[in-house]
Amino acid sequence: MPSEGRGRVLSIQSHVSFGYVGGKAAVFPLQCLGYDVDVINTVNLSNHTGYGRWGGTRATAAELDGIFESMEQNGLLLPDRLLTGYIPGAEALSAVMSVAKKLRERNPDLLYLLDPVMGDSGKLYVAPDVVPIYRTALQYATIITPNWFEVEVLTDVKIVDMPSLRRAIQILHDECRVPNVVISSIPLRDWLRDALPSHMQPPPSDLDHLVCICSSVPERGEGTPHPSAVHAQHIPCLPGYFSGVGDLFSALVLAHYAPAAPTPHPDVAPSPLASAVSQALTKTHAILALTHTFATTLPEEERLPTDEEADAREPDRRIRRMRGRELRLIQGQDIIRGEEPVDCRRMEPWVDFWS
Amino acid sequence: MPSEGRGRVLSIQSHVSFGYVGGKAAVFPLQCLGYDVDVINTVNLSNHTGYGRWGGTRATAAELDGIFESMEQNGLLLPDRLLTGYIPGAEALSAVMSVAKKLRERNPDLLYLLDPVMGDSGKLYVAPDVVPIYRTALQYATIITPNWFEVEVLTDVKIVDMPSLRRAIQILHDECRVPNVVISSIPLRDWLRDALPSHMQPPPSDLDHLVCICSSVPERGEGTPHPSAVHAQHIPCLPGYFSGVGDLFSALVLAHYAPAAPTPHPDVAPSPLASAVSQALTKTHAILALTHTFATTLPEEERLPTDEEADAREPDRRIRRMRGRELRLIQGQDIIRGEEPVDCRRMEPWVDFWS
Repeated sequence: MPSEGRGRVLSIQSHVSFGYVGGKAAVFPLQCLGYDVDVINTVNLSNHTGYGRWGGTRATAAELDGIFESMEQNGLLLPDRLLTGYIPGAEALSAVMSVAKKLRERNPDLLYLLDPVMGDSGKLYVAPDVVPIYRTALQYATIITPNWFEVEVLTDVKIVDMPSLRRAIQILHDECRVPNVVISSIPLRDWLRDALPSHMQPPPSDLDHLVCICSSVPERGEGTPHPSAVHAQHIPCLPGYFSGVGDLFSALVLAHYAPAAPTPHPDVAPSPLASAVSQALTKTHAILALTHTFATTLPEEERLPTDEEADAREPDRRIRRMRGRELRLIQGQDIIRGEEPVDCRRMEPWVDFWS
Repeated sequence: MPSEGRGRVLSIQSHVSFGYVGGKAAVFPLQCLGYDVDVINTVNLSNHTGYGRWGGTRATAAELDGIFESMEQNGLLLPDRLLTGYIPGAEALSAVMSVAKKLRERNPDLLYLLDPVMGDSGKLYVAPDVVPIYRTALQYATIITPNWFEVEVLTDVKIVDMPSLRRAIQILHDECRVPNVVISSIPLRDWLRDALPSHMQPPPSDLDHLVCICSSVPERGEGTPHPSAVHAQHIPCLPGYFSGVGDLFSALVLAHYAPAAPTPHPDVAPSPLASAVSQALTKTHAILALTHTFATTLPEEERLPTDEEADAREPDRRIRRMRGRELRLIQGQDIIRGEEPVDCRRMEPWVDFWS
């Protein structure tokens, strides 16, 4: 079947009936941007687990295999791009990674964005036996989008200063053989602020900031992959916790990634990764700002501050809080399509990163 | 939670990984038109069953109940509109219809579009014990969108002439208490052509035609519901079989349906049903034409004519044929949003329908 338009994405991640995480945060933006999306649901839940209560089921490895096998038999396993997100449990993850390996071997031009969804802020939320499977699977990925904690888990390097940050990125490129690494968010601590070129530091403010860093090596398996091209940009932390942000961001990175055409001067060509991440960061932040603004218009009991202790005493409090912070994807679809001008968050070259 | 924008639709129907039927044909259009959509998957299959081979699982009634109960507990069962489509098996259908009843009782303004997906062209493709459940559930619906065969099954009236057509519609309004009936397609046989007002007949051509008929009574349970307001429009049959067309059409009818504001002159106000069906028919036909045009550009082995005997001898033939006729929803999204001018298919008043 001829590929036409933007192409075909196979998305393998969670499904929730209500709200926007996993596939619900990723598929609609990819569709808006012109991709046919084949959607495989690793879970079918009522809502995301941050609500504290949920119903539904997880697909077993056998159930996922049943879908993969029928798609294969029918000649329907022919994506140009592959996106994997939250996959609970080692067996299901192994089933998905077998498919990733097969698709990659079959099509060397496959663009595979692997989001190693394992945890956040120092806490794993998958079973520990998932970790080695991700480590092995990284070699099939074109792009990975871990947060800082997932980088630590994958590399066994605690990121506390520039040498450890460099070491972690180096491991991902050299040992794990990932050509494009996007650390979707890392808190802007003093060591990181001091290391950033001065024009890339956020202006002084009361807000906490996160930094997005991406690093790409020109060609997988080349002799001297370092220094890689590193880009970064900061974003202000919006108060409270929003779910599905990483899933949206990863989908947008994949959607906007355009592999570089061969050029005699690759050093001066714009980095395909930095361009894609700039678009993804810009749009994700704009959707987040829209969601935050909406949340502030809610009646007081719907826009409660994050307070785990109060939530534990009163489960409905947590639910109201979560509900008011579901991403405003539908209302922000013109942002996703690039039809509404928003504050640009361009990834800037961090030229002395490796020195 | 305040309703904002176009509102919130709860969609309960099938999910396929590849292609566009059920939820894959309905959800994206609703989202493009500004609705938040809560999505419950009654099946998770690799592809639609027209391919002849498929993998995946069907949700049991207990699994669906698990999702409904958690949504209810979390206060997430609050749609403005409800859309139900293909639900395999009587137990699962009963579970869904309990929810429909509850939502309707809770919110008298709920707009419920019930597509009684049971069969086509004289063949049932659900278990026969599904039929009485649909008959009982019709009373909860604001709008139903059966094809002619499903009308026959629901009313036990064989539609062969104008008196039987009138009788079937009358049963749906009076006995089944459905205020808005849309017969999505009925072949334009001679008796129907002769009965249509002359300005509503298609010009002579070699093409077969289908007719879409809609009928609405102003208020549920009023004393003299007849004559209802009937509108109709013909569309040419495109060659071959396309799947998901009814699912797309129903989603668009629900999306475009705007309940009438009270008016002192309801007789001259435009019919909300006819307006919605006009939009849905126009856009569905345009997407179908886009799909047909695309199919003609495929290599010869991908655009085989419908031939059940040849398919039976060679299963891959059927698969290639199905794959080339998946709806071009993504490529036609500007049509869905109403941003691309297309040939309008306006539902015309059929003033002497009842006489």
